[in-house]
Amino acid sequence: MKRQSRPASASTSDAPSAITTPLLDPRLLRRVVVEAVAPEIDGGRFAIKRTPGEQVIVEADVYADGHHTLGATVLWRRRGDEQWHETAMTPLGNDRWRAAFAIGERRDYEYTVEGWIDRFESWRQELSKKVAAGQDVGSELQEGAHLIVTTASRASAADNKTLSGYAAALENTGAPADERVVTALDALLRELMSRHADRSSATRYAQTLRVMVERERARVGAWYEMFPRSATPDSSRGATLDEAAVLLPYVASMGFDVLYLPPIHPIGRTFRKGRNNALTPDAGDPGSPWAIGGPEGGHTAVEPGLGTIEDFDRFVDAARRHDLEIALDIAFQASPDHPYVTEHPEWFRHRADGTIKYAENPPKKYQDIYPFDFETDDWRSLWQELKAVIEFWIGHGVTIFRVDNPHTKPFRFWEWALSAIRARHPDAIFLSEAFTRPKIMRRLAKIGFSQSYTYFTWRNTKAELTEYFTELTQTDVRDYMRPNLFTNTPDILHEYLQHGGRAAFEARFVLAATLGASYGIYSGFELCENVPIRPGSEEYLDSEKYQIKPRDFTRADSLAELIAQVNAIRSAHPALQADRTLDFHETDNDQLICYSKRSPDGSDTILVIVNLDPHHMQHGWVHAPLAAWGLLPGPAVEVHDLLSDERYYWAGDWNYVRLDPQARVAHVLQIATGVESPNVK
Amino acid sequence: MKRQSRPASASTSDAPSAITTPLLDPRLLRRVVVEAVAPEIDGGRFAIKRTPGEQVIVEADVYADGHHTLGATVLWRRRGDEQWHETAMTPLGNDRWRAAFAIGERRDYEYTVEGWIDRFESWRQELSKKVAAGQDVGSELQEGAHLIVTTASRASAADNKTLSGYAAALENTGAPADERVVTALDALLRELMSRHADRSSATRYAQTLRVMVERERARVGAWYEMFPRSATPDSSRGATLDEAAVLLPYVASMGFDVLYLPPIHPIGRTFRKGRNNALTPDAGDPGSPWAIGGPEGGHTAVEPGLGTIEDFDRFVDAARRHDLEIALDIAFQASPDHPYVTEHPEWFRHRADGTIKYAENPPKKYQDIYPFDFETDDWRSLWQELKAVIEFWIGHGVTIFRVDNPHTKPFRFWEWALSAIRARHPDAIFLSEAFTRPKIMRRLAKIGFSQSYTYFTWRNTKAELTEYFTELTQTDVRDYMRPNLFTNTPDILHEYLQHGGRAAFEARFVLAATLGASYGIYSGFELCENVPIRPGSEEYLDSEKYQIKPRDFTRADSLAELIAQVNAIRSAHPALQADRTLDFHETDNDQLICYSKRSPDGSDTILVIVNLDPHHMQHGWVHAPLAAWGLLPGPAVEVHDLLSDERYYWAGDWNYVRLDPQARVAHVLQIATGVESPNVK
Repeated sequence: MKRQSRPASASTSDAPSAITTPLLDPRLLRRVVVEAVAPEIDGGRFAIKRTPGEQVIVEADVYADGHHTLGATVLWRRRGDEQWHETAMTPLGNDRWRAAFAIGERRDYEYTVEGWIDRFESWRQELSKKVAAGQDVGSELQEGAHLIVTTASRASAADNKTLSGYAAALENTGAPADERVVTALDALLRELMSRHADRSSATRYAQTLRVMVERERARVGAWYEMFPRSATPDSSRGATLDEAAVLLPYVASMGFDVLYLPPIHPIGRTFRKGRNNALTPDAGDPGSPWAIGGPEGGHTAVEPGLGTIEDFDRFVDAARRHDLEIALDIAFQASPDHPYVTEHPEWFRHRADGTIKYAENPPKKYQDIYPFDFETDDWRSLWQELKAVIEFWIGHGVTIFRVDNPHTKPFRFWEWALSAIRARHPDAIFLSEAFTRPKIMRRLAKIGFSQSYTYFTWRNTKAELTEYFTELTQTDVRDYMRPNLFTNTPDILHEYLQHGGRAAFEARFVLAATLGASYGIYSGFELCENVPIRPGSEEYLDSEKYQIKPRDFTRADSLAELIAQVNAIRSAHPALQADRTLDFHETDNDQLICYSKRSPDGSDTILVIVNLDPHHMQHGWVHAPLAAWGLLPGPAVEVHDLLSDERYYWAGDWNYVRLDPQARVAHVLQIATGVESPNVK
Repeated sequence: MKRQSRPASASTSDAPSAITTPLLDPRLLRRVVVEAVAPEIDGGRFAIKRTPGEQVIVEADVYADGHHTLGATVLWRRRGDEQWHETAMTPLGNDRWRAAFAIGERRDYEYTVEGWIDRFESWRQELSKKVAAGQDVGSELQEGAHLIVTTASRASAADNKTLSGYAAALENTGAPADERVVTALDALLRELMSRHADRSSATRYAQTLRVMVERERARVGAWYEMFPRSATPDSSRGATLDEAAVLLPYVASMGFDVLYLPPIHPIGRTFRKGRNNALTPDAGDPGSPWAIGGPEGGHTAVEPGLGTIEDFDRFVDAARRHDLEIALDIAFQASPDHPYVTEHPEWFRHRADGTIKYAENPPKKYQDIYPFDFETDDWRSLWQELKAVIEFWIGHGVTIFRVDNPHTKPFRFWEWALSAIRARHPDAIFLSEAFTRPKIMRRLAKIGFSQSYTYFTWRNTKAELTEYFTELTQTDVRDYMRPNLFTNTPDILHEYLQHGGRAAFEARFVLAATLGASYGIYSGFELCENVPIRPGSEEYLDSEKYQIKPRDFTRADSLAELIAQVNAIRSAHPALQADRTLDFHETDNDQLICYSKRSPDGSDTILVIVNLDPHHMQHGWVHAPLAAWGLLPGPAVEVHDLLSDERYYWAGDWNYVRLDPQARVAHVLQIATGVESPNVK
């Protein structure tokens, strides 16, 4: 429902200033309270996040003194537009109201709530009660006629005419009272009166809340992380980007959407790390891509071993032809050989002896890395330069960025930079690679990162997964923080994978790909690489960070087929493309985890059951809320295992499952819902 | 700890405006985040409530990017003062910080939180780690000296000199390194550096939060409600105030603090209600005091039967001599005979035929009551008049008001009126008599009512009492809504009292007086009056609202002695004078409820056990958290029943109790805590 914009009052009626003005401020006459609006992040300080096609379900407490009937509406518009759209809110009980609006375009939106006393509806209900009690309502009918006449004066000519007719009929004391009552309660009259309701004393919520709208890839995507240099035909040197492009069909065949590359820039030589993080590298050691910068250039240059910027452009184009988007790594730090070090020594901190401070976490020293001094006197030019780095790569066709350790740079730097970049490049997507304290991770999400790495890697039991993903998807965190679940990274090989064999990899893969609308794996995962540098460590042996690591992706025992199958299921099923509907279900065996996701319209329902024990067959009973979904009682419900193509028929909520990791670790079940169900939240 | 005020920046660093300024705003350099400050009501829109002597325990999330050590402080001051006081906050883990400040005076206060990167402390900790790892710290000592010199320049002359000495010692390369390290880690240096810490880039929380400070009676008090006209020696007429004053010693002897009188104004004659709410009164029927206004006057007049305004003044004085404060009823409505009706017909709503609308709740009609039209065109003069009514009675020595049905008048009227009155009369206390939906009751508390009636009367089982009082005392509701628990009112005789006999009255009395720092009884409760007008009704038979009701307060079976005893216990025990520490404890019998309250300093602990079954002996085991209170393990703990003066010795947390309603319904136990414990929240 659309309507004309009304002049927005600069201040809302809920401002305490209205109370203390010496003269009685007319805003004091606004009797309706609008409060506890949700979603709202930190009192409106931050935007909620959506993608086009998603809904914003708005709730608010709306009430007034006395016993009037109220009206309430969500006002929403694209940011920058003047005209508000409106969606009427419905009371839920206990003075709570709700309405939803849909995000139509990839533009930021804003919304707020307005409530008012609905004089006509109040009158209408009082009239009905008095009629029911057999009381004389002559006076009420006259009062109603007066209300209608007043309203008609605000209406269009056509509506004015219709309303005036109603008023006359109500006032026509010649007609029988019961006829006049029928007219008074007429549905068209009610609709017209609602359309032209007097909202001059309406209360508008004090905040205008924002929706940051990004393209769909910010919400859903399958990521593959790969060091292009490892795709080498000659193990004495790293692959070029042209050579690495040979792997694009392979990655695409598994159904990935995003190919994420660690930094592709020249790598420093000073204090370069050798294999397995050795302090003394061999001559041919390629170094860590995160030690950015050498004589050949810094954050806007391409490592010569990989090729030229033109080679990179070609690589991006080739990926695009395979429906793969390239994501680059943004690691704002410099090797001692970075051009910035000589050109802008003032961008770094210095020791008393004049040398530049390297990174430290006492007693550890990272002599190969110089952090930037974001508070340098010359901070403005540093900040602008770093923003320009990102814009440079946007200029080369990259709009997805995985940001390395954002939590060691000022929040306000990111908030400023991301906001400025998104204003010019709304396609840009930023993934926050922060594994740190919960509030810091959340803050990064609030200030504008599109997606966030999570603790998923370290959540392995049913209790851990249930608690953590309930927090991420069923609290207000879900409105600003989008998880991207990586099964592994070049830094994290969890002991569950080290000891669980192939079944552990399968289980963690299915969990990542079905718990998270966005998820990723790091190359080698599909080959079940699981050897740590030493017992108890989460670091890989022969870590690809420090050496070229060619792989045989054609191995018969690769998980590529399973991955392709699950990614195809993800693409076909809207239920798996968002996280808000995630719901965990009971099982009577703690090694069996069971959860569901549903599409927003309820038409697509996927139920997943995973055996978390990679070593033993586990069986037990799981609870699928078929009755709550409206599927039971009735004929048995068909559940279709999308992995095995088997079909089961379930006649009750509790059903028996048996998962032997030697055969399979999971059921991914489509529940036949028949007709479309009403919207689910 | 006090410090000089710093120039308050008009806007805080957390404002989004800092992000979007075209030039990089220096506020972007404020790296610390301060958020989730508590207590905070609706984003700072409303004040929290305290009385002098109470603490405000402030918590906040304070964190920054990177790995620095932070400092955080609560800033607080009396409203209107320029200078802030400071109390350093302590980290609680998970980036949460806490500090407390005490309310010293009956003036409103305000508070906020500031956080900053503590450069010296960060340096100090890094130094310690490097020393522990045996690393060379020559460069660090020089860096420290530089920090100290910079800080010294901001210090007083004396501190400057001391600090400069430290700097020289750190830089003295002639001295052994370990000696210089000892100097660097010196406690006095640390204290001086903390005192003069550089907070130019500190982040101040965006809101300045308010504390509404009222006198202690707003928090704690025992109320007695009495119709003065019933204290008559001649049942053919109501008592005068002089005659009613005879009861003052009786009320005072029970230990009450507040004597609350229903409206004392002239009572309307038109549509006057007779006995038991009859539509046709007898000639001598006195009418309901809430039908306010007659030829003799309205809200500022005294009903002639009670006496004159001088008689009233004398009554207030007499009460004061018995340490009783008079509370008046504020019922903003008029009888058809109220002078306002003729003098200000525009203050009322009119029907189509020109008559004034009486109160209705279809199909019910209340022809004896005219509500005011708070939205009348002449609303400003109506609002001012009603405020003046309250001020009139303040002029006659009354500062406690029980406000009748505030939820049927606009919230903003109350917010404006109460705020204006409190500004001139800070002693004024307002009790909200609203029995309506939860959010409306809370709103009235937020906008400035000192105390609130509650659902206590309708919470009778252990589960109901536990849930409700946990909500009132252990959620943020406690910071703005102070319950006043009435056992009964002229309108509410709960069926528990109707059917439970004397034991029910005893149990409900002990619950009210120990669950609530403020509580009240309505006259006749002590005589166990329990006859409803009809089965299933909560109305009294022969309700005192409509007739004179003389009572024999000297009856042997009166609860007056128990009441006096419990009120004396309340006065002697700080634990019972606030509600924040209320804690419910397990029992193995649902008819036995067990809870405790502790004084803020932990030195006074009262444990209450009530048998909720007025008909049968109940026994069972109750859990007293003696170990959690630090009293066990150790010698058996002495518990002293303040009602019976018996002493028990408890050696464990679980103890057996037996309560026979024929003998007694409750234990009110003082727990011997020995020495003072640390502050409890």
